[in-house]
Amino acid sequence: MSVTFPKGFRAAGMTAGLKPSGRPDLALLVADEVCAAAGLFTTNSYPAAPVKLSRERIAEGHARAVLVNSGDANAGRGSDGDLDARITTSEVARALGEQDARVLACSTGMIGGGFNIGSITAGIPGLVNGLSADGGAAFAEAICTTDTVIKEAMSEVGPYRIGACGKGAAMVEPKLALATMLVFFTTDAPLEPSTLRALAETSLKPAFEQLTIDGCTSTNDTVLLLASGAAEGEPVPEGSPVARDLASALRDMADSLVRQMAADAEGGTKVLVIDVEGAGTDRDATTVAKAVANSVLVKTAAFGADPNPGRLVQAVGASGAGFDPATTRITLGEILVSDGGRVPPEYDAGGAAHLVMKEDEVLIGVRLGDGPGRARAIGCDLSYEYVKINAEYTT
Amino acid sequence: MSVTFPKGFRAAGMTAGLKPSGRPDLALLVADEVCAAAGLFTTNSYPAAPVKLSRERIAEGHARAVLVNSGDANAGRGSDGDLDARITTSEVARALGEQDARVLACSTGMIGGGFNIGSITAGIPGLVNGLSADGGAAFAEAICTTDTVIKEAMSEVGPYRIGACGKGAAMVEPKLALATMLVFFTTDAPLEPSTLRALAETSLKPAFEQLTIDGCTSTNDTVLLLASGAAEGEPVPEGSPVARDLASALRDMADSLVRQMAADAEGGTKVLVIDVEGAGTDRDATTVAKAVANSVLVKTAAFGADPNPGRLVQAVGASGAGFDPATTRITLGEILVSDGGRVPPEYDAGGAAHLVMKEDEVLIGVRLGDGPGRARAIGCDLSYEYVKINAEYTT
Repeated sequence: MSVTFPKGFRAAGMTAGLKPSGRPDLALLVADEVCAAAGLFTTNSYPAAPVKLSRERIAEGHARAVLVNSGDANAGRGSDGDLDARITTSEVARALGEQDARVLACSTGMIGGGFNIGSITAGIPGLVNGLSADGGAAFAEAICTTDTVIKEAMSEVGPYRIGACGKGAAMVEPKLALATMLVFFTTDAPLEPSTLRALAETSLKPAFEQLTIDGCTSTNDTVLLLASGAAEGEPVPEGSPVARDLASALRDMADSLVRQMAADAEGGTKVLVIDVEGAGTDRDATTVAKAVANSVLVKTAAFGADPNPGRLVQAVGASGAGFDPATTRITLGEILVSDGGRVPPEYDAGGAAHLVMKEDEVLIGVRLGDGPGRARAIGCDLSYEYVKINAEYTT
Repeated sequence: MSVTFPKGFRAAGMTAGLKPSGRPDLALLVADEVCAAAGLFTTNSYPAAPVKLSRERIAEGHARAVLVNSGDANAGRGSDGDLDARITTSEVARALGEQDARVLACSTGMIGGGFNIGSITAGIPGLVNGLSADGGAAFAEAICTTDTVIKEAMSEVGPYRIGACGKGAAMVEPKLALATMLVFFTTDAPLEPSTLRALAETSLKPAFEQLTIDGCTSTNDTVLLLASGAAEGEPVPEGSPVARDLASALRDMADSLVRQMAADAEGGTKVLVIDVEGAGTDRDATTVAKAVANSVLVKTAAFGADPNPGRLVQAVGASGAGFDPATTRITLGEILVSDGGRVPPEYDAGGAAHLVMKEDEVLIGVRLGDGPGRARAIGCDLSYEYVKINAEYTT
């Protein structure tokens, strides 16, 4: 059901003919009425045209619809891209009888390619006609690119429902304000735009910023959170127990989507979870966690299921974070790999440590000292298949 | 001839039995007398034992000999590693009739492995006996690990000779104060230790810091510069025309070694040269150059000879450096790929740009604006072979 699990939303997905593969490539999410909306967008210096448009339009905290095209990034096209984003969303607005400013856009696909606006505008009437309260699955499928499975999450908090779906298998290290990661959350809880923005910043942003598939922050990353209020009742007060329960549910759903994306990473065969604690600051902890998750030597060793202690020590030590090397401890699962930069003489790379590395999810723990700073990074290995996908990906 | 090209040096290389392959693994460079010495060492928080020892011993600016083992990193071993570095260099000192403090050590190989000190100490007498003024080639070979060719450079500046050799094919993004990159420069020019240190800082450090094979800064990186003074004459005054000529020759030799290393990178099939100019500061330029060189999406596209503009735009835009996106220009060879983040409509990925990407050396230009800041990064592509080498590398 994904984004149509909460009341007040309809969705659709279709094949507009943007992808040579003939797979679904155009998706639409519509609220029954204009609803509260919050967004998180990529910090890449070259944001895609739909990112600029959506960022501007969502500023007032309201939206009615989101048009998503997974056939072309509509990035790297200058003012042509901006114009095409306006034209396509305007078509949606007209079909819905809505103001242009209430229609958002997202896109993912090749950057700097030709943009097949004809196929998109030709597809929009059919897409609007196909809108349905059961359309969440079709929407979730039509936003995918190299994703091999759809990513969804659902939750119920008292009388309120939350639905979500996302895509992202490469060029993913969201720095939100995110990679081409696209994520859509919907809820029927009555939430004011300011409450929604706070939920996005405090629950969604930290969860998605844990993810790094390849260390590459896309031009198109977008996370949208829409609240229809269709469950009715008074607006949920910020800071109330219900708001905290909603925040907690959003965080759990975001964590679930992050794991689904890491598990479906391009060419990935396993998920790496790096937990850093005891740092001076969360920032130092994040620096170390991302340094390990993004190390190509750690990633290729993980692909080979090689519990190579030297690569973990190297990555932590080269991170540039501030810490006392003498007090650090690195673990693989429950196994001590390095104590103060020293690999224990009894460490056996062929034994239990090798079994840890063969798991679908490998847990790497780094204790830097006794500070309060902590962070998690969620990444994946780097395989022959990743090279194949990305060397043969054609412009 | 490498390091024995200048007068006043002898060298040797041998198979001590540290490598299962049976390839040469122990090397020794000796000056006829104690000579001026300067060094640059890794900034990894977990420096290898020989790095700590050499950094301490070279502080006074003098050295007689350098023992290099390419069978084991002697890193990640705590105080055992420190002791073994002292014992092995002490054996060399005794055989030479020299003080312990005048013998430096370097190592490269597996981090946190068993250290076969018995084979090293057993090999030292034969190594000392084998010292020869023709030993440069044997030395250059015995310092290699996954390197497939030896890396040497030679130069003459007036009456003075400079010789150099180096190794480094992975875990290489030197941040000097270097990866396991090991580099040795020798000269017979009469140079005071302070002049030598200045030359190392101003000519060698910036040249080697351009290199990034995989973004991973090793625990063992070392660059040593030894000046025997055997060409005789008065010490070369710092800032003199001759000193400037020596600096220029050192820089050219360092650039040559960097290219040799990038060309021999693990699994590498081509060299990437990223030239950034017009930045606000050299630091911003370096951030952008390294972001492009270390992008796994750029590296895999390069392996596939795909002139993908989106990946270059993404990497520049996500670098985090400060610049005005509207004024940036990215080129592949002579071909404009992006102007202000916009890929020109006439850009043809299948034509001349594809031919540029098929070259052995791919030149990527980034003009950020009109600022004075500039930087170069030298990297390589990421191939199936890189994954194979690093997934099957066994601990």
